[in-house]
Amino acid sequence: MSLLSRARDPLPSWHEGAAKEAIIGFVNRVTTSGHPEFIPIAERIAVFDHDGTLCPEMPVYAQFAFTADRARAMAPAHPEWSGESPFKEVLAGDMIGALKLGIGVFARVLAATYAGMTTDEFERDVRTWMATARHPKTGRPYTEMVYQPMLELIAFLQANRFRVYLVSASGIDFLRPWIESVYSIPREQVIGSSIRLQFASRDGKPALVRLPVLEVYDEGDEKPVAIHHFIGRRPVFAFGNADGDIAMLRWVASGDGPHFCGLLHHTDSDREWAYEAYDPALPIGSAKKALAMAPGEGWIVVDMKKDWRIIFSSGFRP
Amino acid sequence: MSLLSRARDPLPSWHEGAAKEAIIGFVNRVTTSGHPEFIPIAERIAVFDHDGTLCPEMPVYAQFAFTADRARAMAPAHPEWSGESPFKEVLAGDMIGALKLGIGVFARVLAATYAGMTTDEFERDVRTWMATARHPKTGRPYTEMVYQPMLELIAFLQANRFRVYLVSASGIDFLRPWIESVYSIPREQVIGSSIRLQFASRDGKPALVRLPVLEVYDEGDEKPVAIHHFIGRRPVFAFGNADGDIAMLRWVASGDGPHFCGLLHHTDSDREWAYEAYDPALPIGSAKKALAMAPGEGWIVVDMKKDWRIIFSSGFRP
Repeated sequence: MSLLSRARDPLPSWHEGAAKEAIIGFVNRVTTSGHPEFIPIAERIAVFDHDGTLCPEMPVYAQFAFTADRARAMAPAHPEWSGESPFKEVLAGDMIGALKLGIGVFARVLAATYAGMTTDEFERDVRTWMATARHPKTGRPYTEMVYQPMLELIAFLQANRFRVYLVSASGIDFLRPWIESVYSIPREQVIGSSIRLQFASRDGKPALVRLPVLEVYDEGDEKPVAIHHFIGRRPVFAFGNADGDIAMLRWVASGDGPHFCGLLHHTDSDREWAYEAYDPALPIGSAKKALAMAPGEGWIVVDMKKDWRIIFSSGFRP
Repeated sequence: MSLLSRARDPLPSWHEGAAKEAIIGFVNRVTTSGHPEFIPIAERIAVFDHDGTLCPEMPVYAQFAFTADRARAMAPAHPEWSGESPFKEVLAGDMIGALKLGIGVFARVLAATYAGMTTDEFERDVRTWMATARHPKTGRPYTEMVYQPMLELIAFLQANRFRVYLVSASGIDFLRPWIESVYSIPREQVIGSSIRLQFASRDGKPALVRLPVLEVYDEGDEKPVAIHHFIGRRPVFAFGNADGDIAMLRWVASGDGPHFCGLLHHTDSDREWAYEAYDPALPIGSAKKALAMAPGEGWIVVDMKKDWRIIFSSGFRP
């Protein structure tokens, strides 16, 4: 009797195969009381990268589009930006070009466009933008551009008493206003990049004011550091898609007990984006190292083209 | 019919009075479906300061004693420490003297005694110390030196679906190894000071190594900043005991909806410590400003002597 016949299929958008079997097998083992791999509920922590793992990051990820729109709105007051990096790349919507300058340079755009307002004001700005912004290739809201198989995986883990966290290089304050309604992940379970905040007074009331200083860039080696600070436990389940997730996957894989590490491979140039077609010097999305490491490290590679029956729930294509 | 007659007394170590009534009244109102002050479960966030609010911080708080013990163990290899601030104050167990030097100077002790090892090794060290260390005045383990009325309050809030967080100037990695068993607060709900970590390799395995850099000193104005980063919601319930908690209390009190802010006043020189007897220039514990603000801000002042029937569960006295 296959594991699947035990119950209703928890991952209907996944094709039968090694990846689906590995996920369901892991969850069944670690949640079966008395099983040698049983994991107590308190330790069932799952971490997911966001951009590229739960939703596309090509040709732009949501926060870059948001940043570009903010810069464009401010540009009339800054004529010098049109000839100046990283502003000119951002204004042109050239994500790859802007990120190739390095996070230190790119942070100048964040300092110019993300600071000065309170956290409440920024949250309102994000909500307003998300309600109207559309993906440049599909014309869909970003909140619809999420992978149906991953929504099913998150729900399956949560049904099995895992606490699911996002661990993203995107800004913590950019993600929190909308991720709850999209992924059913509570906002306190979002870990991301952050800028410096200051407790201050606005209109005679206490406020947290955003300062033009990037404090944490939650990518690469900073992901396990941030996981330790925010959660204080080593997760037992991790999913990423790119070289920026290697440290997180290695951290989870080096735990003493049972664990699952997954790597999403963008292979579907028809229904999504096949990253191989992109510049190999890509500052984001590149998974060359991670894919090379996966077999030796025991990470399960999920091939979007072969493993996923559906990519977006409404069936649209880029 | 009084509110209390509705159910078994949830706070048996609290004397009847305005403070107890205010707490129970608040919790009953915000958890009563249909009540105008009803708060949905997702937003029921409570934050507690730790030292001085859940346990004594006089004549030393637990982490200072831990730090002094570590410094003493290392002192034979550092003969220069005996004449050098802040080391000489720490070695002498002079907490007030050490903290009066300012956190920037005191951080040199942390750099010398808290860095170089992995997070796993540090956790083991904390567990070992907590298992054997004794409070200098009572001879009791620090894990027993916690306020029984506060344990009841935490349990009461949790029973009403509040998620209770600690927000402490003590180190996040010092608190997490033992707070779960003492307060029933999960380790991911601890916010505290932290030093810089680095993702590295130890014995061929990934490890998080502690660096000699104090990164976050979670006190005063940094408390609301840390709450925003870690939780991303404004709490609706807060409890502190000192001027270092003012920003946190003001942040919670300035929310749009119903909220409760409590300030514990150390008034019992017989059963605990009455802070008024201390140096008014005290770098910790001073509550002068907070006590002066409380009435105007609507914070409920809890008088340990008058409001608490029991302080420590086993009834011992300093």
